[in-house]
Amino acid sequence: MMLEEKTISSDRIYTGKVISVKVDTVEVENKGYQKREIVEHPGAVGVVAINDNNEVVLVKQFRKPIEKVIWEIPAGKLESGENPKECAIRELKEETGYEAENLKLIHKFYTSSGFSNQKIYIYLATGLNAGENKLDEDESLEVYNIKLEEAYNMIIKNEIEDAKTSIGILLAKELI
Amino acid sequence: MMLEEKTISSDRIYTGKVISVKVDTVEVENKGYQKREIVEHPGAVGVVAINDNNEVVLVKQFRKPIEKVIWEIPAGKLESGENPKECAIRELKEETGYEAENLKLIHKFYTSSGFSNQKIYIYLATGLNAGENKLDEDESLEVYNIKLEEAYNMIIKNEIEDAKTSIGILLAKELI
Repeated sequence: MMLEEKTISSDRIYTGKVISVKVDTVEVENKGYQKREIVEHPGAVGVVAINDNNEVVLVKQFRKPIEKVIWEIPAGKLESGENPKECAIRELKEETGYEAENLKLIHKFYTSSGFSNQKIYIYLATGLNAGENKLDEDESLEVYNIKLEEAYNMIIKNEIEDAKTSIGILLAKELI
Repeated sequence: MMLEEKTISSDRIYTGKVISVKVDTVEVENKGYQKREIVEHPGAVGVVAINDNNEVVLVKQFRKPIEKVIWEIPAGKLESGENPKECAIRELKEETGYEAENLKLIHKFYTSSGFSNQKIYIYLATGLNAGENKLDEDESLEVYNIKLEEAYNMIIKNEIEDAKTSIGILLAKELI
């Protein structure tokens, strides 16, 4: 069976500040032509930052698409030409003030490959040194230090409902 | 600190078959007006189906947005008015042929709340009975039974790089 789909044509629908949208017409083996709606995203990082008290740094942030304040690990979009590790260092500092002595890529994943190319790189940060945070002009958030075991329980109780945060903490717990 | 953002206006950019796109202008406390690009999605389910040999059912599927064949748990979009459990039963049957005696919601999460409202419900399915699958006309995929321990190792080695699949298997491993 041939799983790949050949692109026949591609229509640009929207080019925005963060995302772009296109609709591709593809040829599917034995199934003719189909439309694929695709949201292009620059990619992002998330940082599981663990301090010397075995606490993980979480932020509470309002997310307009879901009209809700949710728990997340510090995270942010890749800037043009930025490599994921630089982005992880920058976002951790901007959102929480922390700088990490050790930063290790532990996972990368697609958030929703059915309609978007968004890819998130998860870093584990240890050896944290506190400092001043400095949020982007369009950001508002609150920073908390939560025991790793308690953060894990927040996933099990589903108080955490963010993909990168659950994956990051579940994997960090195996590694720490 | 006020985290919520008040909507000032909303522009509809695109209404598609699966997704819709709008750009909202919001008011952020002490930071004035900002734009929020939002992709609306009907929501989806993923099913961690475990058979009596402690194998998990995985599918390999080409995903056009990332131009790649990836490993996933059986999954699909909610149809209009469909509740997530019905959707889980339907998608498991359509993609793999399996029917499950037990189906339990174990987690729900947002895939990418920075730009989309997509929410995925993860079900754990056990007591599997094999049957014929019946794919949607725009779907092509391959079905595999993989030992749960091996699937877990595929996450650790990052051969699995799909959000719902990693979350589902990591949580199922705690529950089984």
